[in-house]
Amino acid sequence: MHFVNGKSSTQISIHDRGLAYGQSVFETIAVVKGKPLLLKKHMQRLYSGCERLLIPLNKTRLVAEISEACQQAYAKTETDSFVLRVSVTMGEGGRGYRNPSEPKSTRILSFSAYPSVPKENWLDGIHLGMVTIRLAQQPALAGIKHSNRLEQVIARSQWKDGWGEAILLDDMDSVIEGTQSNLFVLKNGMLRTPDLSACGVVGVMRDYILANASRIGVATQIGRLTVADLEAADAILMCNSLIGIWPVKRFYGQEYENFKLSHKLLGLLRDDGVIPTH
Amino acid sequence: MHFVNGKSSTQISIHDRGLAYGQSVFETIAVVKGKPLLLKKHMQRLYSGCERLLIPLNKTRLVAEISEACQQAYAKTETDSFVLRVSVTMGEGGRGYRNPSEPKSTRILSFSAYPSVPKENWLDGIHLGMVTIRLAQQPALAGIKHSNRLEQVIARSQWKDGWGEAILLDDMDSVIEGTQSNLFVLKNGMLRTPDLSACGVVGVMRDYILANASRIGVATQIGRLTVADLEAADAILMCNSLIGIWPVKRFYGQEYENFKLSHKLLGLLRDDGVIPTH
Repeated sequence: MHFVNGKSSTQISIHDRGLAYGQSVFETIAVVKGKPLLLKKHMQRLYSGCERLLIPLNKTRLVAEISEACQQAYAKTETDSFVLRVSVTMGEGGRGYRNPSEPKSTRILSFSAYPSVPKENWLDGIHLGMVTIRLAQQPALAGIKHSNRLEQVIARSQWKDGWGEAILLDDMDSVIEGTQSNLFVLKNGMLRTPDLSACGVVGVMRDYILANASRIGVATQIGRLTVADLEAADAILMCNSLIGIWPVKRFYGQEYENFKLSHKLLGLLRDDGVIPTH
Repeated sequence: MHFVNGKSSTQISIHDRGLAYGQSVFETIAVVKGKPLLLKKHMQRLYSGCERLLIPLNKTRLVAEISEACQQAYAKTETDSFVLRVSVTMGEGGRGYRNPSEPKSTRILSFSAYPSVPKENWLDGIHLGMVTIRLAQQPALAGIKHSNRLEQVIARSQWKDGWGEAILLDDMDSVIEGTQSNLFVLKNGMLRTPDLSACGVVGVMRDYILANASRIGVATQIGRLTVADLEAADAILMCNSLIGIWPVKRFYGQEYENFKLSHKLLGLLRDDGVIPTH
């Protein structure tokens, strides 16, 4: 099921600035039994992205459309869980970079099947790789889940067989994030995650873990991480809204066996109902 | 007039990766009496961009479609000159950054009116500004006219009233390009233009000037330029396929009065038939 500006549709105008310049923001939301999980946090990030990119948005209308679409999709599907992508673009505009004088944003809702992933990813961890493309430092866009995603598309094309995720560095050799996830590194009982003020996407699940890890007695910290920090880590955790948390079992020569914290955090996310329980 | 994959249309799928990730390349081409100017050079850059972004393309078909569409548009319009935007996207794909296993690119041709600009821009020069957003350094994307253009959209939103163009710097305080043009600086008889190996768009008109300036006795050089170089210049020239060349009459406190070379080069471009003569 797909909706454009509240109406069932799979088409948008070729004049949409989302297509012309990637001038849009999006959220990928887990939906369980018609309920979008972590909706408030997703919407907060979407609103913030729209504000920074000057995209106008009728928030009340968007939330109402999401709610109604999720109910409709649940009524029509046989599975409990699916994925909703919400996009808001700058809408139609003339040729050239100048924003329209009276922009009317385009709202796109698109449902798809929940990705099928082996259970081992959660239980036994994944093989983490590292791609060669570096993330460019652009504070004006950092943190926003916008649609200028060529770096991620190139990164994904650089994955090797067997990798479950791959990290990206910036030009300063700092580890920033996974191709489609954020990461935490466990060392001496402290969970650390990279600073994202110059590049990277501020993940909703990253935020949730930062806000809730203390409930299971783990302190968190935001700061600079290097490849050496990953190699020396007691554990590495990859996270996003759809997968929750995958521990890493291998990163280059290094093997990791301490999955306790990852499993404990995953249990917390499931108990809180912020990821599907399947 | 607008065409999608050779058929008259103004719609594309919401699943197109051009919309989802800005995974597309485009060219903005001046068309005079049904003839697309500098077509070979535009196509060379488009092909190169497609190759670097792994976008498959039937080149013969695209060129045939452009030729036919330009003839049709000329037959139906009352004006001699218009603008053709050619876009090639990665086409439809599933959710996620991974490229489709058998991608089918989308070809979009879209005609619009030639921008109306005061004649003074060519004769007396423009007021050149400078925006605060910096261009991020990303060698993997540098030079390509791709659709991840949020930096340019933000730059355009930072223009002040009266500016005819505005330059962007990178993080190293190097001058890279205009918001929608490339630039040359004239100093001691030498035309210099920034190196674009880390960021910026390799403009078709920039290439043409580099290849042809020697015909009017001017040497050219590619290298690093700073704001100080612009302030100390004998002349500054902004160029792209649609405008040809605009000289700069003012850049911050600095005034420029030497428009001879700009007018001479413009004459050469008109004589060569690579820009409209209106």
